[in-house]
Amino acid sequence: MPVVAAYLYRNGQRAAPVTLSSPAPVCAGDKSEFIWIGLVEPSEEELRVLQENLGLHPLAVEDALKAHQLPKVEVYGDQLFVVARTAHLEGDRIAYGETSVFVGPTHVISVRHGSARAHTQLRAQLEAAPNQLRLGVDYVLHGILDFIVDGYLPIVEAIEEDVLAMEQKTLESCLGRGEINRLFQLRRELIRFGRVMGPMSEVASKLVHLDLPGIDPDVRPYFRDVLDHVRRVEVMAAGLRDALTSVFEVSTLLEQQRQGDITRKLAAWAAILAVPTAIAGIYGMNFENMPELRTAYGYYVVLAAIGLACAGLYWRFRRTGWL
Amino acid sequence: MPVVAAYLYRNGQRAAPVTLSSPAPVCAGDKSEFIWIGLVEPSEEELRVLQENLGLHPLAVEDALKAHQLPKVEVYGDQLFVVARTAHLEGDRIAYGETSVFVGPTHVISVRHGSARAHTQLRAQLEAAPNQLRLGVDYVLHGILDFIVDGYLPIVEAIEEDVLAMEQKTLESCLGRGEINRLFQLRRELIRFGRVMGPMSEVASKLVHLDLPGIDPDVRPYFRDVLDHVRRVEVMAAGLRDALTSVFEVSTLLEQQRQGDITRKLAAWAAILAVPTAIAGIYGMNFENMPELRTAYGYYVVLAAIGLACAGLYWRFRRTGWL
Amino acid sequence: MPVVAAYLYRNGQRAAPVTLSSPAPVCAGDKSEFIWIGLVEPSEEELRVLQENLGLHPLAVEDALKAHQLPKVEVYGDQLFVVARTAHLEGDRIAYGETSVFVGPTHVISVRHGSARAHTQLRAQLEAAPNQLRLGVDYVLHGILDFIVDGYLPIVEAIEEDVLAMEQKTLESCLGRGEINRLFQLRRELIRFGRVMGPMSEVASKLVHLDLPGIDPDVRPYFRDVLDHVRRVEVMAAGLRDALTSVFEVSTLLEQQRQGDITRKLAAWAAILAVPTAIAGIYGMNFENMPELRTAYGYYVVLAAIGLACAGLYWRFRRTGWL
Amino acid sequence: MPVVAAYLYRNGQRAAPVTLSSPAPVCAGDKSEFIWIGLVEPSEEELRVLQENLGLHPLAVEDALKAHQLPKVEVYGDQLFVVARTAHLEGDRIAYGETSVFVGPTHVISVRHGSARAHTQLRAQLEAAPNQLRLGVDYVLHGILDFIVDGYLPIVEAIEEDVLAMEQKTLESCLGRGEINRLFQLRRELIRFGRVMGPMSEVASKLVHLDLPGIDPDVRPYFRDVLDHVRRVEVMAAGLRDALTSVFEVSTLLEQQRQGDITRKLAAWAAILAVPTAIAGIYGMNFENMPELRTAYGYYVVLAAIGLACAGLYWRFRRTGWL
Amino acid sequence: MPVVAAYLYRNGQRAAPVTLSSPAPVCAGDKSEFIWIGLVEPSEEELRVLQENLGLHPLAVEDALKAHQLPKVEVYGDQLFVVARTAHLEGDRIAYGETSVFVGPTHVISVRHGSARAHTQLRAQLEAAPNQLRLGVDYVLHGILDFIVDGYLPIVEAIEEDVLAMEQKTLESCLGRGEINRLFQLRRELIRFGRVMGPMSEVASKLVHLDLPGIDPDVRPYFRDVLDHVRRVEVMAAGLRDALTSVFEVSTLLEQQRQGDITRKLAAWAAILAVPTAIAGIYGMNFENMPELRTAYGYYVVLAAIGLACAGLYWRFRRTGWL
Ligand SMILES: [Mg+2]
Ligand SMILES: [Mg+2]
Ligand SMILES: [Mg+2]
Ligand SMILES: [Mg+2]
Ligand SMILES: [Mg+2]
Ligand SMILES: [Mg+2]
Ligand SMILES: [Mg+2]
Ligand SMILES: [Mg+2]
Ligand SMILES: [Mg+2]
Ligand SMILES: [Mg+2]
Ligand SMILES: [Mg+2]
Ligand SMILES: [Mg+2]
Ligand SMILES: [Mg+2]
Ligand SMILES: [Mg+2]
Ligand SMILES: [Mg+2]
Ligand SMILES: [Mg+2]
Ligand SMILES: [Mg+2]
Ligand SMILES: [Mg+2]
Ligand SMILES: [Mg+2]
Ligand SMILES: [Mg+2]
Ligand SMILES: [Mg+2]
Ligand SMILES: [Mg+2]
Ligand SMILES: [Mg+2]
Ligand SMILES: [Mg+2]
Ligand SMILES: [Mg+2]
Ligand SMILES: [Mg+2]
Ligand SMILES: [Mg+2]
Ligand SMILES: [Mg+2]
Ligand SMILES: [Mg+2]
Ligand SMILES: [Mg+2]
Ligand SMILES: [Mg+2]
Repeated sequence: MPVVAAYLYRNGQRAAPVTLSSPAPVCAGDKSEFIWIGLVEPSEEELRVLQENLGLHPLAVEDALKAHQLPKVEVYGDQLFVVARTAHLEGDRIAYGETSVFVGPTHVISVRHGSARAHTQLRAQLEAAPNQLRLGVDYVLHGILDFIVDGYLPIVEAIEEDVLAMEQKTLESCLGRGEINRLFQLRRELIRFGRVMGPMSEVASKLVHLDLPGIDPDVRPYFRDVLDHVRRVEVMAAGLRDALTSVFEVSTLLEQQRQGDITRKLAAWAAILAVPTAIAGIYGMNFENMPELRTAYGYYVVLAAIGLACAGLYWRFRRTGWL
Repeated sequence: MPVVAAYLYRNGQRAAPVTLSSPAPVCAGDKSEFIWIGLVEPSEEELRVLQENLGLHPLAVEDALKAHQLPKVEVYGDQLFVVARTAHLEGDRIAYGETSVFVGPTHVISVRHGSARAHTQLRAQLEAAPNQLRLGVDYVLHGILDFIVDGYLPIVEAIEEDVLAMEQKTLESCLGRGEINRLFQLRRELIRFGRVMGPMSEVASKLVHLDLPGIDPDVRPYFRDVLDHVRRVEVMAAGLRDALTSVFEVSTLLEQQRQGDITRKLAAWAAILAVPTAIAGIYGMNFENMPELRTAYGYYVVLAAIGLACAGLYWRFRRTGWL
Repeated sequence: MPVVAAYLYRNGQRAAPVTLSSPAPVCAGDKSEFIWIGLVEPSEEELRVLQENLGLHPLAVEDALKAHQLPKVEVYGDQLFVVARTAHLEGDRIAYGETSVFVGPTHVISVRHGSARAHTQLRAQLEAAPNQLRLGVDYVLHGILDFIVDGYLPIVEAIEEDVLAMEQKTLESCLGRGEINRLFQLRRELIRFGRVMGPMSEVASKLVHLDLPGIDPDVRPYFRDVLDHVRRVEVMAAGLRDALTSVFEVSTLLEQQRQGDITRKLAAWAAILAVPTAIAGIYGMNFENMPELRTAYGYYVVLAAIGLACAGLYWRFRRTGWL
Repeated sequence: MPVVAAYLYRNGQRAAPVTLSSPAPVCAGDKSEFIWIGLVEPSEEELRVLQENLGLHPLAVEDALKAHQLPKVEVYGDQLFVVARTAHLEGDRIAYGETSVFVGPTHVISVRHGSARAHTQLRAQLEAAPNQLRLGVDYVLHGILDFIVDGYLPIVEAIEEDVLAMEQKTLESCLGRGEINRLFQLRRELIRFGRVMGPMSEVASKLVHLDLPGIDPDVRPYFRDVLDHVRRVEVMAAGLRDALTSVFEVSTLLEQQRQGDITRKLAAWAAILAVPTAIAGIYGMNFENMPELRTAYGYYVVLAAIGLACAGLYWRFRRTGWL
Repeated sequence: MPVVAAYLYRNGQRAAPVTLSSPAPVCAGDKSEFIWIGLVEPSEEELRVLQENLGLHPLAVEDALKAHQLPKVEVYGDQLFVVARTAHLEGDRIAYGETSVFVGPTHVISVRHGSARAHTQLRAQLEAAPNQLRLGVDYVLHGILDFIVDGYLPIVEAIEEDVLAMEQKTLESCLGRGEINRLFQLRRELIRFGRVMGPMSEVASKLVHLDLPGIDPDVRPYFRDVLDHVRRVEVMAAGLRDALTSVFEVSTLLEQQRQGDITRKLAAWAAILAVPTAIAGIYGMNFENMPELRTAYGYYVVLAAIGLACAGLYWRFRRTGWL
């Protein structure tokens, strides 16, 4: 079901259903009359019909079909072609979709690939405010981008939870193999996310600042609002990336200290135990003439000496912090 | 008590109290007559009243309500909307608040969220210099920003104290687990602080350099002064960030040396003690034909040999710096 | 065989073969008539003939001969000189070739050095769409660049496979010497690749955005498409570079932990074994007066004590995670 | 003594002494007549007098009083306000001062804070070349900046000496705790120095490139000369920063190798010594039926076996480079 | 002999020798008549003579005398002053010289300091192509810069050889102390080289892109060629820098693994040897009641037990890769 919804709008209200081959309205000077068609992973033929009908540029149609683009805004004559990236969490991974939007004087066509959320709710929401919707196709474009961008925040917030938990864990004990892998995976996800956010904020910025066909001054503040949201998400993601790097560094340092401590302790105990071994070894020699061996209390004296030596070492090691 | 203070000003002096629904003065060519309303976490209705009355843009009102913006300057027709971030220390953490300011031809409205300091003192201070206050709404905007920016310096200075103490500590001994955590936490706070300072200095820079509605040339030097303060704070924070990284690096290196020294010392002592153990082991063997065992001074010779070997090793290890 | 193909095109169709000394068509206002000559590592004389005939600039000819240029676009009067880098995988290495293109009002000359794929297929493909080919020399230039840029993606995808395999390997065990070398070699290849992609995307960007001789507005969207491809490849390569760095860092950390674990375990066992050695050493001393030696169960008691001590240590080491 | 020198200059020569309340000369079209006042840490009143008399801007006066500015150039009407940072070595630390300069049509006022060198020599030097000094207030501003910038080079050269000595030390042996601390302290000083040089070179660059009041075209090359000096110092400081980082990295690596070598050597010796201990231990067992013990040469055979084993291990460890 | 060569050129050919005090030709509209003077480390007087005669700017003359400049282009009226850095290898170090060029309407003066190659060959080469040399002073400037820039490539290629040898060495064994020092020294040389190349490519870029006095459009492509060469050298040097960093990182990691492996092996052997020591120690105790000692085959059983234990440990250590 590639055609999800297709209607003619007039004065901010749904006027009639349309088909892919319906012509767009010809309405000089009236922005409020336009068709809005929503497609999901359409076939090449369906897009070709629209291309014929509405004069879409072949290169734009190709991009909308293949769907492996970075976010971008392109001008083809009096039409705009906008590519945005949708994102949603799948377990620990951020999954990306792509939504392309063709904007002409009297048509908006959105083409979704792999995004998790349908535009039904968005359409209902826009239709609920006819006063705004009559602003025309640029307002619909804003609505779609706003909808996509609103999907970013929950992702970053979910990752923030994970990062905070990892920070806490690092403070309390050391990270295990699985947690280290997870940390690096999260960081990779955030880096990749940042790479998508960059062009997205460029897209929003162009819609705010450049003089593009079909984008009217009264709709610009709405795109600025989208830009704001993208930038906030970007700054949050960058902060989380830093935090993860920090967790990694502090964890490495603490782990290094911990390993060093244990090795040191074991070496100290081995040194203490080497003392009785060495002394006892001497009195285990079989020389015939070892006068100490024949004294009545030699054994006790040596035992005491060993005990004292060990205790002395132990005390010294404690004092210098090696034990 | 969301409405903290609301007055009409004329010629730099408080002329009369106003309410949210009072109309703004209509005074062609006279900048010195304006209303200044201060709100703290207002309800949506209160802001809607102002929106109606003073023609505020709905997107700006929404931002002022939600208060999760990065610092920014936005132009809506002949009005400005400025968002600034306040900051104050809560223990080791920097807590952030947000102050939004609506600036129209004859009104200034400040909306505070989560900031620690009220504007009462600021208002008193500005009213104390009527000659400046009659410069109009742009001067009040400067006053608010200056007030916010003045709150940054104590934060950076407090952190500087901590950083200096850590540097001193590193020179003298090594950092413990708690101190390492604190170091990284401070660094994260400084990174986040830098992320807020960046857009803040952009805001100040725009007010200095761009031709914005309501900002008169005679008030520009005052915004340049604000910019100066932000930049100084930024440079200090960047310096502290570098210093913390340095503390971390030097601490890691010294810790590594220290651990290595101890391990080396323990290993050297173990090697020394292994000598008597090995030699004594040999003379502890039970062979019947071991002529040395029957000599009168064999024991003493072996004891001396062991002593010499240990002393020799000890001397050599000292010389090469292993002990 | 340096001259691979040389034809006159008219109206998007092959009209006649040409030689290096054939004059270019003089056709005021008709873009669709031009000659397209393809050379592979030509001799200096061959290029000199073309230089005379078609008015190529000597510096451009020199660059096309030497073939050690970074990608670039240069304007000489009404002619363009474009250098692009081709790339293909040779084992684990990315091998680079160079293709220079001279574009005049009525001629296109491509000069290939060291590239792996001939332009035969490209020529056939362009000739198969006469409607586009009649757009003229700029369209042919686009065709050549598009062909070159399409060769980048398989490289990055092949490396992606390797990187994913390494990530998997790191999760499961540690990297061996050979794998570490390979990781660093791949990263170096990607860095070098990025250094070639940078100027390539600059070339594409200039063809899209600058007003260059012979590049008509109707062909610009095609160059934008090339730019899109280069940028996507760039972003993928950057992502792979990050992933490799990540693999390296996580591998280092895990290896450090693994080595530390083993050393710790061995040291713990050595400490356990030092206990019987020390105790037994004491009862191996030859003092005449050691009453324990004469008791009936002394041996068993000592054996039991040794066993208990070792078991106790073992249990304690397990509990603290040292074993 | 805050007022160090104050004179009226005419035609490049000292014409008469002036006081803080003397009016500046009013001389249409004649740049060569101006007053030059030099102050050191003046009181607020003194600056207020000048402010009244010469029309200095209150914000500039405030900055000149507080003296905690980054280098900057500010325009107030037809006057310039320039802040520069002086620097000199105090032991291992770079101490910073601040010199503010007010430049009006017919006055130059320099305000020094914490700089080590007085301007007496500078004034003498400028007065010695009346042909240049008659170029006016912009030439005096150049003189002051040139004087300040000339003070940077000795600092960088002194630090260069230290860095070279450290590099030499690293090559020969390893760095001690004190030297590591010094290395990091020098690096911090250089980073901070770079942070001051950045705005300083921006100041010089603005005086070269912007169209500022009072700066005539014939004096621009002189400011370009100042810019050159700042840039050279910047590049040298950046080079030293890199060199220090390099010293740190190479030192860390060599230290790690050195520690590893020692530990390895000690472990190898311990392993060699463990052989006689183990073998001798076996022949020290008290079994009644141990035939070897009763053979005539068993002892010598075992001694030889031990000797051979130890020698063999020693030889093998030497060969594999462990000893 | 500071004056190396000084001639008047007319129509691309040497017309007559000139002296430092000869006046430059006055030739309205004819670019092909000019004097070209080559100096090596001239005295101040010699340059002063030229300054008088040809109207050189005093600041430029000063720079040409002192010769401690970064590469730059400066405009003084209708004259240009260009500073370039020459470079050549002295052993492992890159030695830098400086060549300043004064370019006026009818004169070129080159001033060399510390460069290794004389301009004799360059002059001969330019005189051999009179058709080009008649292009005038800008073509001579190009010739000098091209000559200097051609000297960079051999340096980078020689260092490339070293880097490749180091990469190979790292793959096969580990780097010794001397090699590590060399690696870091090479990297420092490359960083410093990059710092010189940066301004050099800026100089070339200005000569290509800015509208400078005396630089005619027909000579611009030649400067673009110089820029190309500088950029290629820059990219190669950056690549070598990355490769050295890579060698360092991989070497550090492999060294760490190698050290860890050895330590682990030695510890494993020590653990194996501790077993006979401990068991034999037990049977070396002198208890009267140790029944095993009196059994006929006790000794053999214990020997076998020890042998089995050691073999078992050995086998297990092999299996887990510890040996
Ligand atoms: Mg992606
Ligand atoms: Mg971005
Ligand atoms: Mg924003
Ligand atoms: Mg952003
Ligand atoms: Mg944002
Ligand atoms: Mg953060
Ligand atoms: Mg943060
Ligand atoms: Mg910032
Ligand atoms: Mg400032
Ligand atoms: Mg700033
Ligand atoms: Mg600052
Ligand atoms: Mg610092
Ligand atoms: Mg680090
Ligand atoms: Mg690049
Ligand atoms: Mg793209
Ligand atoms: Mg690109
Ligand atoms: Mg890209
Ligand atoms: Mg990635
Ligand atoms: Mg400072
Ligand atoms: Mg700076
Ligand atoms: Mg600078
Ligand atoms: Mg310079
Ligand atoms: Mg500079
Ligand atoms: Mg250097
Ligand atoms: Mg240099
Ligand atoms: Mg540079
Ligand atoms: Mg090039
Ligand atoms: Mg360059
Ligand atoms: Mg380059
Ligand atoms: Mg490379
Ligand atoms: Mg590193």
